Amino acid sequence: MRVVVINGGVGGARFLRGLVAIARGATGSHPLPDESELHITALTNTADDITLHGLRICPDLDTVMYTLGDGIDDERGWGRFDESFTVQHELLAYGAGPAWFGMGDRDLATHLIRSHMLDAGYPLTDVTAALCERWQPGVDLLPMSDDRVETHVITDHDGQRTAMHFQQWWLEHRAELPVHEFAFVGIDAATPTSAVQVALERADAVLLAPSNPVVSTAPVLAVPGIRDLVRQRPVIGVSPIIGGAPVRGYADACLRAIGVDSTAAAVARHYGPRRDGGLLDGWLVDTVDAASCEELASSGIEVRSLPLLMTTPHDATAIAQSALELATELAGGHR
Amino acid sequence: MRVVVINGGVGGARFLRGLVAIARGATGSHPLPDESELHITALTNTADDITLHGLRICPDLDTVMYTLGDGIDDERGWGRFDESFTVQHELLAYGAGPAWFGMGDRDLATHLIRSHMLDAGYPLTDVTAALCERWQPGVDLLPMSDDRVETHVITDHDGQRTAMHFQQWWLEHRAELPVHEFAFVGIDAATPTSAVQVALERADAVLLAPSNPVVSTAPVLAVPGIRDLVRQRPVIGVSPIIGGAPVRGYADACLRAIGVDSTAAAVARHYGPRRDGGLLDGWLVDTVDAASCEELASSGIEVRSLPLLMTTPHDATAIAQSALELATELAGGHR
Repeated sequence: MRVVVINGGVGGARFLRGLVAIARGATGSHPLPDESELHITALTNTADDITLHGLRICPDLDTVMYTLGDGIDDERGWGRFDESFTVQHELLAYGAGPAWFGMGDRDLATHLIRSHMLDAGYPLTDVTAALCERWQPGVDLLPMSDDRVETHVITDHDGQRTAMHFQQWWLEHRAELPVHEFAFVGIDAATPTSAVQVALERADAVLLAPSNPVVSTAPVLAVPGIRDLVRQRPVIGVSPIIGGAPVRGYADACLRAIGVDSTAAAVARHYGPRRDGGLLDGWLVDTVDAASCEELASSGIEVRSLPLLMTTPHDATAIAQSALELATELAGGHR
Repeated sequence: MRVVVINGGVGGARFLRGLVAIARGATGSHPLPDESELHITALTNTADDITLHGLRICPDLDTVMYTLGDGIDDERGWGRFDESFTVQHELLAYGAGPAWFGMGDRDLATHLIRSHMLDAGYPLTDVTAALCERWQPGVDLLPMSDDRVETHVITDHDGQRTAMHFQQWWLEHRAELPVHEFAFVGIDAATPTSAVQVALERADAVLLAPSNPVVSTAPVLAVPGIRDLVRQRPVIGVSPIIGGAPVRGYADACLRAIGVDSTAAAVARHYGPRRDGGLLDGWLVDTVDAASCEELASSGIEVRSLPLLMTTPHDATAIAQSALELATELAGGHR
């Protein structure tokens, strides 16, 4: 079975870790018939990317790479474990900010190699593959595009309407500044890579990871051409909202900004049922949200409920297992 | 009094520290009449510079900056004190060398800012001034040129004649590979900056620091135009050789490669007396070399001897004091 997982951020990376555990036969329970042939493509958001000190930083790609390559700081969710911040401390001593973006020393080596390769003319897809030689993530890790796309937030700050890089809005201002709009700068000119197109064309199903639907999965789906390719496959989403709140981060602030309630049912309606021109064939929700999502069935969305909190890697494996089961079921019906 | 100090490397930086101590009135003995007006320009070799991982590294500029700004690892002579090497360790884990160039985490911040500013179009002179805002070295720290010059060593390696960056020859091979030639790549197209020209035109004397005469002071003097400007001022050199051996590093290997003995007298003859078209008006040697340098007087070089080993900052101050005294004396005669 071949799946493409649209993802961005910590929730997406942990969900992918569950899938990889299954691909590696480490599930221990309910193995899929074709587990040994599970092939995973991580189609990853790059609109969170930022350039600091001349270095190109791709937080979502790195979070996947480190999480799947056992390099992650699992408690923090991002960056390398056993991390230090000596270089950044020195940069700040020179007066070179920003201080709000945590750039660790170990992490910096990744940025250096990426930036050096990009400057030499390699596309981000190839650079990512080169970095993955070290981390062996067990997935094909693909940026959504080789073109530069950056999410900026149109907000009010110091009494003025201004555009601010998403990272600054998220990290320095903790998503507390009002949002007039999320602008995916560069998205109209971006193209999906041939690797992304081939992966989607070959996929038996597309999974929407439990990632922020406004700033993580949305930019991926907004790359011209990707949404149409996604809709040609069965699509199963995993709710990033449990009991009316995001598991981590500020997805609620992002959803509020686009007028969507922070509930599992509202996010499903936001992605939309296939029959109404939306994406979803299936939707995994937490058991606490089962009742409030029952009505989704009437729009043609298959809903399954199970515990969605990913505290341990084993939790993620169980969720991944359910997603694959639903995908297998719907892929059968889809053909 | 205005002096321009041609320098490169640890010896040069320590000599400069002695001069700065005098300029700051910290000598404690034999103050010069005009000590409060001592103005120092450090005209520094940049031919040791190297680009690694896309970062422009200027070892000689940094050694001066850190030494005069109290950031140096004084025991090692180069790099920052309390240094760590986390980033480089990670780069090597990616397979990205070289391992032979020690690139510390604290040091890396300097390279990042420099590279970012150079990429943005600032000349190295301005970048260096910006970095010195933090370090307040007490001198005008000037690169010999804003143009890129790099010393390569024409050598034999693995049975083949090859060109190798000076840093690799020096650090990886410890100056042990045979030298056919030192090539200052880019030197013919390099120009002295206007800051360098103005400093030399205004100088009361030029001092040649006790730096490697083959790979540190030579590239500075080889920038087209600099040597002629230097010869218009009184020139006082400080011998980098004490008792037939360099104080540190492999100056002996470098001198051997160009057919010059590793003695204080031979280096003086290499720079040459002014009357024979050379540079030197004065030459400071260690007391152990006083006798062997007596003959230099007949060629018009004023020789002074004193202990030249710079073990403590106080040693450097005493040497700087002697150099300034000789400069004052010769500048008087020169005018």
